[in-house]
Amino acid sequence: MRETDFVGGFAKGLKVIEAFGEAQPRLTISEVARATGLDRATARRCLLTLSELGYAHFDGKFFELTPRILRLGHAYLSATPLPRLVQPHLDRLSEAVGQSASASVLDGTDIVYVARAAQKRVMSISLVPGSRLPAYCASMGRVLLASLPEAEARARIMATDRKANTEHTRTDPDELMAELVRVRSQGFAVIDQELEIGLRSIAVPLEDARGRVVAALNVGAPAAAVPVEEMTSRFLPAMREVQAALRSLLQ
Amino acid sequence: MRETDFVGGFAKGLKVIEAFGEAQPRLTISEVARATGLDRATARRCLLTLSELGYAHFDGKFFELTPRILRLGHAYLSATPLPRLVQPHLDRLSEAVGQSASASVLDGTDIVYVARAAQKRVMSISLVPGSRLPAYCASMGRVLLASLPEAEARARIMATDRKANTEHTRTDPDELMAELVRVRSQGFAVIDQELEIGLRSIAVPLEDARGRVVAALNVGAPAAAVPVEEMTSRFLPAMREVQAALRSLLQ
Repeated sequence: MRETDFVGGFAKGLKVIEAFGEAQPRLTISEVARATGLDRATARRCLLTLSELGYAHFDGKFFELTPRILRLGHAYLSATPLPRLVQPHLDRLSEAVGQSASASVLDGTDIVYVARAAQKRVMSISLVPGSRLPAYCASMGRVLLASLPEAEARARIMATDRKANTEHTRTDPDELMAELVRVRSQGFAVIDQELEIGLRSIAVPLEDARGRVVAALNVGAPAAAVPVEEMTSRFLPAMREVQAALRSLLQ
Repeated sequence: MRETDFVGGFAKGLKVIEAFGEAQPRLTISEVARATGLDRATARRCLLTLSELGYAHFDGKFFELTPRILRLGHAYLSATPLPRLVQPHLDRLSEAVGQSASASVLDGTDIVYVARAAQKRVMSISLVPGSRLPAYCASMGRVLLASLPEAEARARIMATDRKANTEHTRTDPDELMAELVRVRSQGFAVIDQELEIGLRSIAVPLEDARGRVVAALNVGAPAAAVPVEEMTSRFLPAMREVQAALRSLLQ
């Protein structure tokens, strides 16, 4: 790519949008400059542009994003067949097993939820399309990492801040790589309270018609209600059906 | 705002993202130029920038958005307290009435879903945070339009392509304005198959601690299962409770 083909102002503006988040819902110009590494004048112009276009609100001191920002994510969600194809299957699966079912894809070192059918809330955080979790400690993340060439999977694991969320979280790169080998050979991943105490989940890869892994599917359940064995004995057969049904739908 | 404060490349890039959608998941440079009104060279540079940053994938002919785009919408969803505050209430409400419950805000002539708790699928389309519906024919839209000054509400109705989705859809501006007066005085809106045959819904405004309408809450139900009277007799009291609980939480 030639440098003249790169719209610098666009790239900087996208950085500014991503500076907002749970810990920083309202930001001043200086705070955005600090978070993005942009100079103050550039941060200011990007923020004023967002505000002029209705993507942000400015009260004279603080900027905050408006719901118009959702148009951008929606452009992906509505353009991509995966969420629409997978949603009815998640609805049925979730109802059949009485637990939440989700689909996600890999983005760097994270998984990104693209569809979800929730039964009662199990996790402490709210998961919606667009929500992100670190791949190394999520069942769908393990399945998606296992689908990559080994060097690539290791590189992503090394690039992750591998936090021990609980006493069960596996954080050692070699141990995680060994787990990926196991996941690849058995065709599913089970996480037992590695992300959050009280949460178990099981994931399988979703392949397209050509056998390429394009997403992962999971079922999450409260550890208190569902013993580990039941994750594979009861949920896995139902998940295999979804996997088979989607293989022919995903091109 | 001074012209020098506007980052033209950023504004154009955002337009390019929004050019993608359900009907146009994969676009060529020329198609993006046509959809956005940008010249071909500008469209090309914006697309290459998206692709360079990992927000789009280019196969040599077509561009498509990648899940990384969801980071942008997620910046809003995670930064805004509303979705997080409202979600547990939607979950409980949805379970209590056995129907889907949602919250949305107004963006121009559309409502935008910011949170949802779904029971069985009622609508033919899949609604997730970020999904949009025209305000004039949605129960939450009626409630949100009714909260605006009259001239403003009329302007938004006039700016809408008021399609008769079904034989029940109200499309006449004066009739819609009269309905808004009714909605304002009774404090709720009921839609009976105006959006889609077989779908009824009821909405109430969500006010913050200072009495400003900041969002709308609705319950949708299959017309075959729930008579119109039941929408108000059974759902409304439960919705009023959520309304009261959120009034003190929303600042």
